[in-house]
Amino acid sequence: MNNIRIVLVETTHPGNIGATARAMKSMGLNNLYLVAPKIFPHVDATARAAGADDILAKAKVTTTLSEALMGCNLVIGTSARLRALPLHLVSPRQCAEIVVKQPSNTEIAILFGRENNGLTNEELLKCNYHINIPTNIEFTSLNLACAVQIIAYELYIVFEGKGNSVSKQLIIDELAKAEDTALFYEQLQQILIAVDFLNPKNPRYLMRRLIRLFNRAILEKKEVNILFGILAKIKKKLFSD
Amino acid sequence: MNNIRIVLVETTHPGNIGATARAMKSMGLNNLYLVAPKIFPHVDATARAAGADDILAKAKVTTTLSEALMGCNLVIGTSARLRALPLHLVSPRQCAEIVVKQPSNTEIAILFGRENNGLTNEELLKCNYHINIPTNIEFTSLNLACAVQIIAYELYIVFEGKGNSVSKQLIIDELAKAEDTALFYEQLQQILIAVDFLNPKNPRYLMRRLIRLFNRAILEKKEVNILFGILAKIKKKLFSD
Repeated sequence: MNNIRIVLVETTHPGNIGATARAMKSMGLNNLYLVAPKIFPHVDATARAAGADDILAKAKVTTTLSEALMGCNLVIGTSARLRALPLHLVSPRQCAEIVVKQPSNTEIAILFGRENNGLTNEELLKCNYHINIPTNIEFTSLNLACAVQIIAYELYIVFEGKGNSVSKQLIIDELAKAEDTALFYEQLQQILIAVDFLNPKNPRYLMRRLIRLFNRAILEKKEVNILFGILAKIKKKLFSD
Repeated sequence: MNNIRIVLVETTHPGNIGATARAMKSMGLNNLYLVAPKIFPHVDATARAAGADDILAKAKVTTTLSEALMGCNLVIGTSARLRALPLHLVSPRQCAEIVVKQPSNTEIAILFGRENNGLTNEELLKCNYHINIPTNIEFTSLNLACAVQIIAYELYIVFEGKGNSVSKQLIIDELAKAEDTALFYEQLQQILIAVDFLNPKNPRYLMRRLIRLFNRAILEKKEVNILFGILAKIKKKLFSD
């Protein structure tokens, strides 16, 4: 499970960061990333970590989500709401099944949003899957660390239960890194503007649909290279002829 | 799930009582019993309940465990340690399966011990089953509310039958027809040849990879229309400028 990172985005309460570290450690997860935490480090974080302070000590603090996702091949975001444009929506158990099937060189990030309002649409758009934790429809509010605990628990159960079944791993090609995929989307957008398909004054909905499409496919490294090649050729033709 | 009571024994921190109420409510559990809590009610309990204060308000406080178990038919105790004389030891999932099979007039109690040292042997002896939450053997320490969250989550999943049904909630757009997707691949190939990316004398491998990519995403009708639109614009730019 060393290729899994738990990413907390703009956490407000340091106590929740500590409690998350404890929830992670109890289920064998080690890599914590904190994107722009409001207050960290803090005595409340250490207190609530209750012995998991080694995870806090080596937690990586970043200013942007993109930095926290650097090197990741598979990005999974938790969301309490069902969005207008959902990606693959999975349960915590399905998420664990997906993660356990990845080859060991797949870097995986699981994102948890702000205490008050979760992940933004833009952040969710960086994900290959969305997890929805089933809850009482009249009270969907989970504590951040408790949400991490459920996801980590499901991962632990599956990893422990399948420790010896490596042969069941999906044989897939190496996956693309999040930063390369993001760059492809950027260059794609430039081309779409250049050919007058996309109006830069109102680009969002269209790019979202395209990003959602490619994210669903979970791009491989070779595929992203092909896509870069295509964009480069189109650009060359457009501007040199 | 109204015949299930969550019983916390001699809880030290009122914050954990509040967080437990929240964990319960998120999973549709309502009945909280507090056996000799150190401090309750308390502002920390209310704060951490985060909207589940109705559960705190009607929580029953007792001085002994026996009082809290009054009227119960089935008593289940959580234990981090494997005891010398374990009773039926079950996993959280097995516990949920056992509970869901009970007739609705079975009163069920699930016990959670002290933050520092759990339930005593004497208390565990009052139980019909012991639950052991699987954890990292090197760090078995779960926060009280997180432990409640896991048990309540497994109960909720089984009661709601929601283990794998989240995907049913997905509202996906109408999928593309095979003939439209095939036409898109054809037009894509023409463009790739036109921009010198694809050598028509040896086109196969590249198109296969691209088709495989798009097929993995399972294209929707609207997406294919967008893709057609992009190809048309590129074509227009290439040949009219």
